[in-house]
Amino acid sequence: MTGSRVLNRALRSKIMSASEAAALIPAGSNVGMSGFTGSGYPKEVPAALAERINALHADGFDFKISVWTGASTAPELDGALAAVDGIEMRLPYQSDPACRARINAGQMDYIDIHLSHVAQFVWFGFFGKLDVAVVEVAGVLEDGRLVPATSIGNNKTWLDQADKIILEVNNRINPAMEGMHDIYYGTALPPHRKPIPLVTPSDRIGEPYFRCDPSKIIGIVETHAYDRNSAFTPPDETSRLIAGHILEFLAHEVKKGRMPENLLPLQSGVGNTANAVMAGLEQGPFENLTAYTEVLQDGMLHLLKRGKMNFASATAFSLSPEAVDDFNRDVEFYRERVLLRPQEISNHPEVIRRLGVIAMNGMIEADIYGNVNSTHIRGSSIMNGIGGSGDFARNAYLSFFMTPSTAKNGQLSCIVPMVSHVDHTEHDVQVIVTEQGLADLRGLTPKQRAKVIIQNCSHPSYRPALQAYYERSLRESPGRHTPHMLNEAFSFIQSWKAEKAAMEV
Amino acid sequence: MTGSRVLNRALRSKIMSASEAAALIPAGSNVGMSGFTGSGYPKEVPAALAERINALHADGFDFKISVWTGASTAPELDGALAAVDGIEMRLPYQSDPACRARINAGQMDYIDIHLSHVAQFVWFGFFGKLDVAVVEVAGVLEDGRLVPATSIGNNKTWLDQADKIILEVNNRINPAMEGMHDIYYGTALPPHRKPIPLVTPSDRIGEPYFRCDPSKIIGIVETHAYDRNSAFTPPDETSRLIAGHILEFLAHEVKKGRMPENLLPLQSGVGNTANAVMAGLEQGPFENLTAYTEVLQDGMLHLLKRGKMNFASATAFSLSPEAVDDFNRDVEFYRERVLLRPQEISNHPEVIRRLGVIAMNGMIEADIYGNVNSTHIRGSSIMNGIGGSGDFARNAYLSFFMTPSTAKNGQLSCIVPMVSHVDHTEHDVQVIVTEQGLADLRGLTPKQRAKVIIQNCSHPSYRPALQAYYERSLRESPGRHTPHMLNEAFSFIQSWKAEKAAMEV
Ligand SMILES: CC(C)(COP(=O)(O)OP(=O)(O)OC[C@H]1O[C@@H](n2cnc3c(N)ncnc32)[C@H](O)[C@@H]1OP(=O)(O)O)[C@@H](O)C(=O)NCCC(=O)NCCS
Ligand SMILES: CC(C)(COP(=O)(O)OP(=O)(O)OC[C@H]1O[C@@H](n2cnc3c(N)ncnc32)[C@H](O)[C@@H]1OP(=O)(O)O)[C@@H](O)C(=O)NCCC(=O)NCCS
Repeated sequence: MTGSRVLNRALRSKIMSASEAAALIPAGSNVGMSGFTGSGYPKEVPAALAERINALHADGFDFKISVWTGASTAPELDGALAAVDGIEMRLPYQSDPACRARINAGQMDYIDIHLSHVAQFVWFGFFGKLDVAVVEVAGVLEDGRLVPATSIGNNKTWLDQADKIILEVNNRINPAMEGMHDIYYGTALPPHRKPIPLVTPSDRIGEPYFRCDPSKIIGIVETHAYDRNSAFTPPDETSRLIAGHILEFLAHEVKKGRMPENLLPLQSGVGNTANAVMAGLEQGPFENLTAYTEVLQDGMLHLLKRGKMNFASATAFSLSPEAVDDFNRDVEFYRERVLLRPQEISNHPEVIRRLGVIAMNGMIEADIYGNVNSTHIRGSSIMNGIGGSGDFARNAYLSFFMTPSTAKNGQLSCIVPMVSHVDHTEHDVQVIVTEQGLADLRGLTPKQRAKVIIQNCSHPSYRPALQAYYERSLRESPGRHTPHMLNEAFSFIQSWKAEKAAMEV
Repeated sequence: MTGSRVLNRALRSKIMSASEAAALIPAGSNVGMSGFTGSGYPKEVPAALAERINALHADGFDFKISVWTGASTAPELDGALAAVDGIEMRLPYQSDPACRARINAGQMDYIDIHLSHVAQFVWFGFFGKLDVAVVEVAGVLEDGRLVPATSIGNNKTWLDQADKIILEVNNRINPAMEGMHDIYYGTALPPHRKPIPLVTPSDRIGEPYFRCDPSKIIGIVETHAYDRNSAFTPPDETSRLIAGHILEFLAHEVKKGRMPENLLPLQSGVGNTANAVMAGLEQGPFENLTAYTEVLQDGMLHLLKRGKMNFASATAFSLSPEAVDDFNRDVEFYRERVLLRPQEISNHPEVIRRLGVIAMNGMIEADIYGNVNSTHIRGSSIMNGIGGSGDFARNAYLSFFMTPSTAKNGQLSCIVPMVSHVDHTEHDVQVIVTEQGLADLRGLTPKQRAKVIIQNCSHPSYRPALQAYYERSLRESPGRHTPHMLNEAFSFIQSWKAEKAAMEV
């Protein structure tokens, strides 16, 4: 037991192998797992459970569970369980190819939820009983409290709400991370709720550890594994152009006096464009930045390192292997400048609106009136899910949605007459950005938005067709507030390739 | 001057006629007017301005203004100005036939905004400078502070932000209303915002009067006029059925322990169905109710009177003439039980989520996957606007959307394959109710929602067609998460009458 991170002696008796732990999860149970954007997910129990399920299926037994998480996880969790058809229902967010394929084939149930809604809906009892929690932690203290890992997500809720708890204690996690977490225990059910006392991103309002009823712990698995640390791809030209438009716009807003010189707390979605914006900020004129976001990617660490950013609040890390190395080297530096919080706090409308966050998120497509689709391809297949984009977009000081102007090698326009699925309505979208340019929709009517979105954001090869749709709608639409020809709003997209080809002749 | 409610002597010199005041409003200006759901709007200046505009137009001059309000007003304001083509741009909500006709004819600009966004977007400078405020009040105190009228809306913001102020002092307003208002002056621009210290609907967090810089007041008009008090129509059979389903559901939730016995603070949209729910509550088993809502209609006054409801917080009254009489008779009683607040507080996501409001709003149509259209007919003509429905739906403990299952004498189904405009996404809608029944969407996947919405909510004459669309989509849709046939999602609606006729043969 030397070196064990399970300091509580009584709990050491619960240490077991991953397959022993997996055997404790009953068929049909609702299982709350840790994990948020590829970090802090359990590394061994899900895979062991997948093996067990596979064997049972081979013997003709039914065995599925429902998997609730923070957000997306990794191949060892979502991938492994989906591959053996072990997931009955998944919530609230995923980005796994195997899950996605099963969901879109109609073989797996999926409920896509605002991340800020998840914890409270579980507390309200809207999803039924949580049977088991499987949570990765960095250690168990002598008094039984738990040291959180590289993401918080919904772990506090899972630990509180589950009947039974399985812990994965991962001793790969830098022990110096202890103290970087802020678990808020002031939540309550209405009518007993109180204001959340957070007024700047660096405010500590909670405790560095999870409370945990030791009598609920049925198994502890010791692991030694890395998070899914995806390689960092340097920003491509498209991302750099998008980032450039955003940075120019922010500078303009500061000049106009509509924003402080150090901006306002930044939220940034994951991916290439998000990293490009951060890279732009690294070169840019803004100092003393802060972040109030979900996920800390490489870009934000760089900003902290360079002294451009003073503080970052998030619920998870999502780092490249090199960034992990840097983080571990300078963990003392980062511990003064980073806090991880439960996702009901990182994404809380109350806090986001109070802080006046600047939100920047990716999208699949936007329509000419400013409605945004973040989740569905052709209205029917899910890509990932809405995640926290709605929590941020609705409550932000300023909300950006960004995408390359085309997808699939230019074969599809990401600016369309009418989006095939709406995640963010015209009421929630202030700025749309593509590599072509930026559309500032504030204070514009639907028709004014159409003009600026088509002109500034669409790809030139689709612009004439969009313009033609808009102009003909202006004449033929039954109403002229938001002109549309419902018969053609989608069929138009489908015939675009033909139209585009015709126009290029 | 005997009996004047303008107690400040210096300001008395500003008393003038409505046409003198209207002459002070420049062409092209942004004008912030009071008014919320037919109460507290200026009664004489807008009409005088409309006359002036009409005369100028006759002489060949251009003259339009932009009109910003709390929400909908009345024929004397929206109607009069729209009739003379005096409105360049209107925000954030209207329900006036003349406005609607001009907007949908493409002759008037309209920006439809979440009511909780309005004040802050003006403070942020997103809509440009507010030139003039025209605000109805119940009186001017000796020290220059203003006694609010029958609605608050955005008045605090208009008075603070406008360069110049015109007051209408209406001495029809019961002077005993003084003290029924709670104007919160704790708002700030980010990064200086603090928690809003409101934890129950009855909390006073502000002051009973508006602060007002007297040097900005350029005119005061004394009026003696009633609000637009629409007659109360007793609930029809459809509304009573909808209300019945909701009440039964609430009782079930209490029984399941998911809600306290006195429920949670109620928010209720305006109209017939809302009143029917209140009437149902009057007979029902629930005691010690509270309301945290936008508008107080007759139904809530009845609940207060009967002792079923302890307290109601709102931003406006919208009463029938009989209810006004009752209110005036018992104003001392109501003053202990009612508070009117600025709409940025009545609709604040922070407060709505904290209180755990039960939200009940009307809609135009819902689709089989639970997306809701509150604003547009055929995707292009605006009906009213989103109002506060999004503020409440997204942040409520439970959010109901209700509609008769058909419109236009049964010629249209209000349950459709795909809504032609989305105001509330599948992520924000928990319960859909028609006279046919109730669909509890909590914890359901899109396909499960489709089944229960079609089965429970659609009208039997449209049910087979909806079912057929869903089943064929299940087979033909490119993805099976949210099965759709985009080519038919709308055309289907258009061919319904024919299909329906065919089925009935
Ligand atoms: C919308 C979202 C999928 C975009 O992701 P991204 O990595 O920035 O963008 P990409 O351009 O790589 O697109 C992702 C995929 O969608 C496809 N795609 C993008 N736009 C498309 C369009 N208009 N039509 C069809 N497919 C499209 C891409 O081709 C790519 O598919 P592939 O992996 O098969 O090549 C992503 O931002 C997301 O999941 N957002 C919702 C959640 C969220 O905002 N979270 C952050 C804050 S909480
Ligand atoms: C959606 C809304 C218009 C419904 O209003 P209502 O008075 O309850 O409902 P009604 O059944 O009287 O419908 C209003 C009109 O829409 C029409 N309508 C309703 N459903 C329709 C449909 N599916 N297709 C076409 N027209 C429809 C009705 O026929 C009626 O038109 P008419 O006046 O020409 O007869 C109204 O609730 C609204 O404006 N909501 C948005 C704002 C809001 O929710 N505010 C409250 C909280 S802040």
